[in-house]
This record gives sequence, C-alpha cells and structure tokens, in this order.
Amino acid sequence: MTPPVLITMGDPAGIGPELCLRALREPAVQAICRPLVVGSAALARRVASAAGLPPPETVIPIADWLAGSASPVTGAWLDTGLPLGARTIEPGRVQAAAGHEAFRSIRAAVDPVIRGRAVALVTAPINKAALHLADIPYPGHTEMLANMTGAWRHAMMLASDQMIVSLVTIHLGLADVPGRLTIEGILDTIRLTADALRRLGKSDPRLTVCGLNPHAGESGLFGTEETRLILPAIAQARQDGLTILGPLPPDTAFVPDIRAQTDAYIVMYHDQGLIPFKMLAFESGVNITLGLPIVRTSPDHGTAFDIAWKNKASTSSFFESIRWAVRLAGTSGSWEQP
Amino acid sequence: MTPPVLITMGDPAGIGPELCLRALREPAVQAICRPLVVGSAALARRVASAAGLPPPETVIPIADWLAGSASPVTGAWLDTGLPLGARTIEPGRVQAAAGHEAFRSIRAAVDPVIRGRAVALVTAPINKAALHLADIPYPGHTEMLANMTGAWRHAMMLASDQMIVSLVTIHLGLADVPGRLTIEGILDTIRLTADALRRLGKSDPRLTVCGLNPHAGESGLFGTEETRLILPAIAQARQDGLTILGPLPPDTAFVPDIRAQTDAYIVMYHDQGLIPFKMLAFESGVNITLGLPIVRTSPDHGTAFDIAWKNKASTSSFFESIRWAVRLAGTSGSWEQP
Repeated sequence: MTPPVLITMGDPAGIGPELCLRALREPAVQAICRPLVVGSAALARRVASAAGLPPPETVIPIADWLAGSASPVTGAWLDTGLPLGARTIEPGRVQAAAGHEAFRSIRAAVDPVIRGRAVALVTAPINKAALHLADIPYPGHTEMLANMTGAWRHAMMLASDQMIVSLVTIHLGLADVPGRLTIEGILDTIRLTADALRRLGKSDPRLTVCGLNPHAGESGLFGTEETRLILPAIAQARQDGLTILGPLPPDTAFVPDIRAQTDAYIVMYHDQGLIPFKMLAFESGVNITLGLPIVRTSPDHGTAFDIAWKNKASTSSFFESIRWAVRLAGTSGSWEQP
Repeated sequence: MTPPVLITMGDPAGIGPELCLRALREPAVQAICRPLVVGSAALARRVASAAGLPPPETVIPIADWLAGSASPVTGAWLDTGLPLGARTIEPGRVQAAAGHEAFRSIRAAVDPVIRGRAVALVTAPINKAALHLADIPYPGHTEMLANMTGAWRHAMMLASDQMIVSLVTIHLGLADVPGRLTIEGILDTIRLTADALRRLGKSDPRLTVCGLNPHAGESGLFGTEETRLILPAIAQARQDGLTILGPLPPDTAFVPDIRAQTDAYIVMYHDQGLIPFKMLAFESGVNITLGLPIVRTSPDHGTAFDIAWKNKASTSSFFESIRWAVRLAGTSGSWEQP
C-alpha cells in the first residue's frame, strides 16, 4: 500500500477545496501516496459543482476512518460534516464561517498524523483575516501546528528542485530583524535543516549560511552580527560535525557556482531567501515547517480569492507539496497500517 | 572620429593595468571609442612584461595631450610619469605607493572629462586599504569623484543587459538601513535613474520600486516605511510624470513576469538589489555613478590581487563598463573635438 497523507482543505472560500478535489484524481499523486482530504464533503460538492469538477468519488465520515472501520485504498474525502453556519459560505470572501471551517479541518487532521495514521500533513492555504473573524487565536498555520503538536521550536524551509532555503527570521519588519537574531536561533535553524536534509537522503548535507550585512559585514565595517552571532553558531554546528560554508556575502551566495556546492541555504531574513528562491522556483515552491513532531508541507501561495471555485488555479505548487511531504516522510514505496 | 573615453588604470598592484593594456588592443573597444588610459607608462611596461602582454603601442605624455599637441586617433596610454616611490611597486600587495598612483591617475583624468576632452570616465578597480596607507582622504571612487566634480547628490546604479538596478542605500549594516531611508533619498534615486534611462534611449522608462519589508509591509503589519517614505516618494515621482510600479513585495519583484515590465529597479538596500543582479549577471555587471556632471562607469569587481600581473583576469565586466560608458554618453558613432 502507498502511504496515507492527510490533506486539510484550507479556507473553503479560497482555492483550497478545488486543489484537494484535483489532488484526489491526480495519477501522479496516487502513484506516491493515498491522499485523504479532511473537510466538509457537502462544501466539496458545492465547490465541485461551481468549478465544473467531478465531486469526490469516495466520501467517508471521518469518525469511521478514525475508528478503523473504513480504509480507503486509493484516497478519499474524509467528511467532517457541515455545521449550520457553513452552509452560506461564498467563494472569494473573508468570512468567519470559512475561517472556522478551515480551523476544524486542521484540528481534525493533526492528531491522526501524530498517532501515525498518516505519514504527513499537507495544508491548503488559509486566510488570516478569516481566522481572526472566527475568533481563532492563531495568526497562521505554523503557530497553530506548533501549539497543537507541542513543538517548542520550529523553522520555515522552502523547497524546490532548484533550491532549498531555511529562514532564521520570517514575518518581521526589516528594522526588527537584527534585534531578533540569536546564536541559538541560527543554530536551531541550521540543525533542523540538516535533519530535514538527512531525511531527504543527504547523509552529509552541505549547508551555506548567509551573512546579514552587505559583504557579510566586511570584517565589522558594515555591522557586527556576523562576528557576534553567525560565526559562533557556525562554529558550534561544525563541532556537531556539520559541513557549513559561510557566512557568505549575501549577494554572491546565490550565483550558480555556490548553488552547485549547496544542498540548502540558511538565510537571516525573509527576502534574503525569498528573492532568490522565487526567481528560481516561482510556481513550484513548497513550504515546509521544520521542528514539528510530524511532517508538514504546504504550497507556497495563498487562498487566491480572486479565482476561487473557478478551476483556474495552478496545481503545481500544491502537488509539489504532496510530493515533498512523501519524500520527507521517507516512506516512498510501501507502508503498513500501524 | 570615435569619441574619446578616459580610463584610469586603478591600483597598479591589481588587475587594472593589464585590463587597460588589453582594452587598448581590443577591436570591440576600438570600434566604439578611442580608449585613453591615464597612468604611468613605465608601470604599464612592467606589468606588460610580467603578464606576457605587448607594451602599450602609443604612449603620449599627458601634458602634451592636454595641451592639444598630440591627438591619438586609435587610443593611447597617456603617461603621467613615474615618481621615485612608485618604482618599487609589487603586484598583489596593499602598498602606499600603489594607492598614491591610483589616486594620481584619477586626479589627472577627472578634469579633462569635465572640460569635454573626453565623453566619459571609466575607472579600473582601486583598493581602499592602499588609499588609506597613502593618506588619501576618501574611502572609494564615488566619494572622490563626487568631491572632485562638485556633485551634491549621487546614486549607484548597476547595469547589465539582463537587469538594471539603482540603490537608495549602499554600504551600510542592515540595522542602519531603515533609519537612513528618506523620501528625498528615494526620490533622488528614482529621478537620477529615470535620467540615465532616458540617456540610454528609453523616453518613458518603466521603473519598479521595491518595498523595504517582507510583503512590502503588508499594510503596516511588518513595518511602516512603505507608507511613510516609499509611497510618498512614488507619488511625487508620478506627479513628475514618471511611470512607476510599486512598492512591490521584494520577493516577487524579480520574477520573470515583472522583469519583463521593468526597465530599471529602485531598491532600498545593497543586497535587495545585488542578490538578483548577481544571479542574472555575475560576470558582466557594470557599476555606474549617477548624479555626477560626467559619465562614470567601472567594472563590478575589485583589484583581484591574487591574480594580478598574470593576465588571468576576465575582461568581460571591464569591456562592458566601456560599452555602457559610451552608451550613456550618447555619442555612439561620431564625435568632434570641442
């Protein structure tokens, strides 16, 4: 049997449900895993009808699947029911009911993955404003999943066949970045990235760490973060036995020569990594949360409300996120029910 | 006659002199301009001999050229003589005498360009530490040239056939960037860039301005520089009649779609522009100083002391800087002695 992967449908007013419907029927997805989408089947049928897609073929109440009384062989929609408030959900709009449905899907999916009923979690995009309207006390997936799984540290890694990059800081104004860098934070990101690469089959991963400042500080002339924070973190990581290049001047770190010597980059802030990543992998990028006790990936795009329920969304990043989830789970090929 | 371009030889202990010797004999350079190298001919002969290159064919004392008694038709080495201290200059070493020779070359070249005896100035690389040892009170070319030409504002633009980008701030630690951004500084950079592009033949240049913060601040969630500084500068530039896209999220600004709509980028800090630029144009980048009363370009590399006087240096960025100088001077084709 191929390994089961749980997929959350995301904000139902966005492109998540239609991406899930298409994943269930995609031969390339079926070839590597059993996709199990967690969400309201009634909503899935509404989206399918609006988008001109076939409705989900196999629908199983999630309680039956949890109880073990139903084991779909080629994937299924695991139905979480339809609360009264969710009946009026409209496409393309920030609405409390949609935020609530997005949250219900995640909450139902996390625990079975922790218990080993599936090898990985793939999450379709959610909307922060809708979560807020629904009084869900999390700004996004990462914080929610860290809390639900009891993770005390985590990092964001972006992956594509062209490049892999992990971020030491993420959604911060640039002015706040230098103050948030710590030796521990840099070291955690390095270690979590090395772990992920080992799971991807690189027994001695080659990591390239960027400096924070132009020319990596040019010996303290343009900032001291390299000498105070980044070099000590690298020294410690090397003591752990890791292979590290850096801290490199950020502007030369991403030229072809260095890319060829690098399995993954560690960058200090969002755009330092995202500028080169999106230049190389605009449509196929996958977001991976490191540090959770489960494998979790998601596509590198948002809910795309402007094209929701129209079957216009590109499936490329979403299917890639399923492929990377299976790779990270290290179960390509066969899997046995635990 | 093709237009004369003055070329400074740079730090004589670096790769500057050999690049100048090769430029003088390069048909692609001769085809677009008359290259006139300013520096010690005795040093040029020493470098030629060490590097296995032919010595300069035409050598004219710079005083004769300045007096108008010698007008080389196909380029020449304009000899500035050899002070006693310069006789012991060695390749590949930071030394006061080399810093002093580099400065003499620049000082001799600037005034004739201001007076119209040449259409542009191209500078070979210098070494900051050597300038410092020679008690030259400037950290680099830009400050030196701004002072010598009486420019009160300037900006750095990097150009290649793949991409053009101007920097609002340059050599600063990342922590100092947000505090140095001003509406006036952003607006100056926009205006100087638009002027340069018009000289390059774009009558209505399309400029793309990057935000400072991730997602361009996401409506103030990750920083307020976009709303406080960048948007007002863009509004003013649009009132001037300029075509501006932005402020764009930095990570999506450089994807192929946006590059196709952009004649030049305006970025807020060094690596925001240099990361994408070097990915696209690692060997062929040219550095252009905007805001001077003369056209000035230079290659996008340093003195490369490790390979000096060995004829191993790539000429690509240096020859490109001559080509861009002629393009910016707008005199391709013919030129008459003023």
